[in-house]
Amino acid sequence: MITVSVVGVTGYAGAEILRLLLSHPRYTSGELTIGALTAGSNAGTPLSDHLPHLPQLADRMVEETSPDALADSDVVFLALPHGHSAAIARALGPETIVIDCAADHRLKNKTDWDSFYGGAYAGSAPYGIPEMPGHREDISNARVIAVPGCFPTGATLAALPAVAERIITPDIRVVSITGTSGGGKKPNVGLLGAETMSNLKAYNTAGKHRHNPEIIQNLSEVAEEPVTCSFTPVLAPLPRGILTTVTASVHPRLAYGDSHDVIKQARAAYEKHYGAEPFVHLLPEGQQPQTQAVQGANTCHVQVEYDPAAGVVLMTSAIDNLTKGTAGAAVQCMNLALGFEETAGLPISGLAP
Amino acid sequence: MITVSVVGVTGYAGAEILRLLLSHPRYTSGELTIGALTAGSNAGTPLSDHLPHLPQLADRMVEETSPDALADSDVVFLALPHGHSAAIARALGPETIVIDCAADHRLKNKTDWDSFYGGAYAGSAPYGIPEMPGHREDISNARVIAVPGCFPTGATLAALPAVAERIITPDIRVVSITGTSGGGKKPNVGLLGAETMSNLKAYNTAGKHRHNPEIIQNLSEVAEEPVTCSFTPVLAPLPRGILTTVTASVHPRLAYGDSHDVIKQARAAYEKHYGAEPFVHLLPEGQQPQTQAVQGANTCHVQVEYDPAAGVVLMTSAIDNLTKGTAGAAVQCMNLALGFEETAGLPISGLAP
Amino acid sequence: MITVSVVGVTGYAGAEILRLLLSHPRYTSGELTIGALTAGSNAGTPLSDHLPHLPQLADRMVEETSPDALADSDVVFLALPHGHSAAIARALGPETIVIDCAADHRLKNKTDWDSFYGGAYAGSAPYGIPEMPGHREDISNARVIAVPGCFPTGATLAALPAVAERIITPDIRVVSITGTSGGGKKPNVGLLGAETMSNLKAYNTAGKHRHNPEIIQNLSEVAEEPVTCSFTPVLAPLPRGILTTVTASVHPRLAYGDSHDVIKQARAAYEKHYGAEPFVHLLPEGQQPQTQAVQGANTCHVQVEYDPAAGVVLMTSAIDNLTKGTAGAAVQCMNLALGFEETAGLPISGLAP
Amino acid sequence: MITVSVVGVTGYAGAEILRLLLSHPRYTSGELTIGALTAGSNAGTPLSDHLPHLPQLADRMVEETSPDALADSDVVFLALPHGHSAAIARALGPETIVIDCAADHRLKNKTDWDSFYGGAYAGSAPYGIPEMPGHREDISNARVIAVPGCFPTGATLAALPAVAERIITPDIRVVSITGTSGGGKKPNVGLLGAETMSNLKAYNTAGKHRHNPEIIQNLSEVAEEPVTCSFTPVLAPLPRGILTTVTASVHPRLAYGDSHDVIKQARAAYEKHYGAEPFVHLLPEGQQPQTQAVQGANTCHVQVEYDPAAGVVLMTSAIDNLTKGTAGAAVQCMNLALGFEETAGLPISGLAP
Repeated sequence: MITVSVVGVTGYAGAEILRLLLSHPRYTSGELTIGALTAGSNAGTPLSDHLPHLPQLADRMVEETSPDALADSDVVFLALPHGHSAAIARALGPETIVIDCAADHRLKNKTDWDSFYGGAYAGSAPYGIPEMPGHREDISNARVIAVPGCFPTGATLAALPAVAERIITPDIRVVSITGTSGGGKKPNVGLLGAETMSNLKAYNTAGKHRHNPEIIQNLSEVAEEPVTCSFTPVLAPLPRGILTTVTASVHPRLAYGDSHDVIKQARAAYEKHYGAEPFVHLLPEGQQPQTQAVQGANTCHVQVEYDPAAGVVLMTSAIDNLTKGTAGAAVQCMNLALGFEETAGLPISGLAP
Repeated sequence: MITVSVVGVTGYAGAEILRLLLSHPRYTSGELTIGALTAGSNAGTPLSDHLPHLPQLADRMVEETSPDALADSDVVFLALPHGHSAAIARALGPETIVIDCAADHRLKNKTDWDSFYGGAYAGSAPYGIPEMPGHREDISNARVIAVPGCFPTGATLAALPAVAERIITPDIRVVSITGTSGGGKKPNVGLLGAETMSNLKAYNTAGKHRHNPEIIQNLSEVAEEPVTCSFTPVLAPLPRGILTTVTASVHPRLAYGDSHDVIKQARAAYEKHYGAEPFVHLLPEGQQPQTQAVQGANTCHVQVEYDPAAGVVLMTSAIDNLTKGTAGAAVQCMNLALGFEETAGLPISGLAP
Repeated sequence: MITVSVVGVTGYAGAEILRLLLSHPRYTSGELTIGALTAGSNAGTPLSDHLPHLPQLADRMVEETSPDALADSDVVFLALPHGHSAAIARALGPETIVIDCAADHRLKNKTDWDSFYGGAYAGSAPYGIPEMPGHREDISNARVIAVPGCFPTGATLAALPAVAERIITPDIRVVSITGTSGGGKKPNVGLLGAETMSNLKAYNTAGKHRHNPEIIQNLSEVAEEPVTCSFTPVLAPLPRGILTTVTASVHPRLAYGDSHDVIKQARAAYEKHYGAEPFVHLLPEGQQPQTQAVQGANTCHVQVEYDPAAGVVLMTSAIDNLTKGTAGAAVQCMNLALGFEETAGLPISGLAP
Repeated sequence: MITVSVVGVTGYAGAEILRLLLSHPRYTSGELTIGALTAGSNAGTPLSDHLPHLPQLADRMVEETSPDALADSDVVFLALPHGHSAAIARALGPETIVIDCAADHRLKNKTDWDSFYGGAYAGSAPYGIPEMPGHREDISNARVIAVPGCFPTGATLAALPAVAERIITPDIRVVSITGTSGGGKKPNVGLLGAETMSNLKAYNTAGKHRHNPEIIQNLSEVAEEPVTCSFTPVLAPLPRGILTTVTASVHPRLAYGDSHDVIKQARAAYEKHYGAEPFVHLLPEGQQPQTQAVQGANTCHVQVEYDPAAGVVLMTSAIDNLTKGTAGAAVQCMNLALGFEETAGLPISGLAP
């Protein structure tokens, strides 16, 4: 019997992890059990006050986060703001698998951590995008796993094959449009329904967003050279979903060829990297990704196109920020770390319309 | 091996049936296979043009609806506008289970059919709300099953125990607020995004909506006396979900008692009818149903309250119009008719936020 | 020169008053000037941080609410939570016209105040629905004016003629569906975009909403007899707008007549009361009110229908909760109190789509 | 007395022109009158069936578009799909001012017309962005005026000063996120509420959108050299509004300087071009444009930032696609052509929230 606990269960990421676990085949079969469900200020209240969409657990209470509560856990998901994970990870026994949805273990470069987050630097852990070369194996052997940020997941999966196979120059511009759950479930005037419905607004622009260095880190690793990235996040009126557009100049080695050839080489690159991936789906030519098609799913839809007049390659992706963007990736990593089938409990179909 | 086909697969109801089948444990285990996927004007086009949220079936084409295409099916879901089902049901062999999402087999009273629909009357079939007394058994033995309308499902489940246990007088007023997918996936200026976002509008009011006689039929059956019903549907800016409010005068037998006693008796009635139901969940006192909590789920959340100053009992329910309101109910009926576990393949958790 | 100040200017009601004043012809002509713009915790910050939609005032700062700041005002709009208005009204000179958007001066019955609000009871002031018989004159002569609640405005205007002309029995059921700005511009998890988009939820049901006694007060005054009212507010995913449905039994004096006659008499009642009203528009037969059609306008659209099978009259109205529901009514009252043209500065056209 | 007619009045652009005219001071004063209101298939139906938000005109009928209907018009707004304007313009007398909201007179280059539209080429007319150098005068003297496309308006106003003052290299990438009214008011499955709510999707990508050559034309004119432009439009779930992000490499002449200096020069460029413009508002440093702040207004909010790590300048703008993006610009052009005050009848304040 494997006991799985969720810290920060009343937030959006924690709740989504729980939603996925409840339909996981190892839970249904009784091999996996839900351990402690903990939170900060919501401790001591009924879980159903916060997560009425999970009536199966209507009789559970939210517990306080404490070493005792988590002592018997084989897997602990940490769904907390950054800065709290390292201490909890240390307090857990060496046998416990820690899957950290915060940023604490993502950045390999202390300078990036200091510039964008600050406070004690926890070092980096295997980074939870199994679709990045070499990562699947690292995750399988890890005790602490860093779940990626939602924007870096969208941008990395959109651009990875183009960067890796030198379809583009390593100098990208990313505009990512996100649903409002990305801002978290905390009181915030700027995220009120009346402020976000019928509205579009860029924020943390021009290099200020914390996910910017993470995108650069991922794509530089893939490119094996430094990548620059202009990153513009935009808040849009939907609860879930990220649509990412990445543009870059076509690589000089292709620029003077036929534009059909660029498309052909680009699609070959995407098929090479994603053809065997269960959760990344290259769309047929002529279709663009849409967030509704991946709503609630662990799936990422991608497309690549070429605009010869501008000399620009357009790479787009759609993910659900809470599923493939956070909680789905976390469960995918759990599956790998426990030796389960990687796809277990993770929806491929989106909830559309 | 059981072969299941879907007629009208590119519409919202047909697509939702397919989404549910793809995660049905009998499909995963290989005991159930997806047969013909047919449509009218979309026949001959790739399924992925219409249902990009189901990438598992990206290589399927939409077929033409024909006796040949459906000949080998053990189960056929009909997700068509009303008026087409009877002919198709007749053309299929007597062994085929037909689950009709249209209105064709719902109404027991030819006069109602003539007033609200018109055209040839197909008679009625076992009616697919297993939670209505006696219906579970009828559905289990049926060859043709009438899937209920979405509004009648919401209103019936909201009011059933109060009507059956004489908590209210049989004279109800229903206001049901629905997402726009209830209007179907057909070109229609009134259902455009720009017309429906930032907008609220009642329609087919004052006895004109086709679901009005169906609500009356259901609750009169439960009440064992005629029920009257004022029904007001309202279109609201969300893709999925129906929130139903039902008001009625408290029954004279309770009107002079203590208001706590009314609540106590009302909750007892709901617990009696729904305590053992897997898909109907009576919320704790003080909570109101919300559609997000049942999004994509086959679950119905209900609540019952009493306003002593007005002498009015308020019954509310939340469903997803495409899941418990149509496709989920259809799969629930299939499970019963095939002797599967009733809950197989049907999500209990909603997709929130 | 008339100086007009707004207290609570960074909230939704205060901001909407300011938006309307900026296009008021007396402001454009220079006869009316914008005085102090004050708030609580936002005092000392640039107005443009809070109200970027009003670039004309981009150089103004938010001031602290104080007697000094308001000393030179001829008109003061109070857009504060309830409980603060009486003290400020008292502190202002007897020449100042105070237009109070809070509930403090609405209720004539201290018992209602104590049950629904509590704290010191300020008494009642002329009530700002000029369309109620006798109110236009009272408002014109008032020094303190109570701006109505948004739900009471929608329900009162929907039902007034039917109640006054005995088209219905004085026993109504109101379901009002509202946009999220009705909840105010304060941090609140339940009003976050991710919680309110794709969601519908009733709240403060079964007699618990503070606007319930206000609806009863208004319609009882019109009916000249006690009215009972079951009131169900529902939160829906749009920023602005209230759609109100009111149902009641047809009055016994009409119940045995022809249903066309009921409609005829009902429409005559609405035309009698609203035919000369600039801001209340009875729709043609067959059309239902929609909130988009009154978005940003001081207009109320109404319709009345009869369902003979249920014996029920359906009255519906659409308003913008921030305009006719609050700030527009406030400016309409200011116009009356200052002897301006009643319609000055108040849009009739809605912003659609 | 000036008679103004609207052709295509039941579409979104035509309706918005009418909404603006109804509050135009020359209409209110009686100097301007509303002439023919015509449409195609909607001719012969009550205007209130289509435009219930304009109750002032509830007694008008939609007329057929014909030379007779328009014969007495001093100004004719054409709000039709492209391809119809030239014939109508020719049929009108030489005294009539024609303001064409379609693309027919926008493109100076017949090759662009042939590639992106096709059919007879009508030549180009003075182009209705008065904020482009020299255009205000051309518009004032024109008999036929080409109202710009909504995306070109957003992109041109975002980038104009940076291009004109050589803050950036003339090689831009534009991602424009639009509300669904941009797709027009015609039956279209892809624009249904259920398809567009909770969804984000790019379309007509990689050089295929018809507004791409228009953006290039505008900015090349300003730059006095050829500009290249990668253009990605994205459909988002709101009725109105376009948020445009433009990125470009900082100009080499600035690249080696201090980043504060880049910002300083960039803001000086924007202030130079827009400081005296009534409808373009450069936001304070640290604020980003949002579409809600310009909803229903003829205002464009812009911001410019610099990301030194990427060497990229980010220019953003927010407009209402139906107001400054179409109908507001059309009325602004009418004001210029008639010698009215340019700002007459055009809201500066946005409708927020």
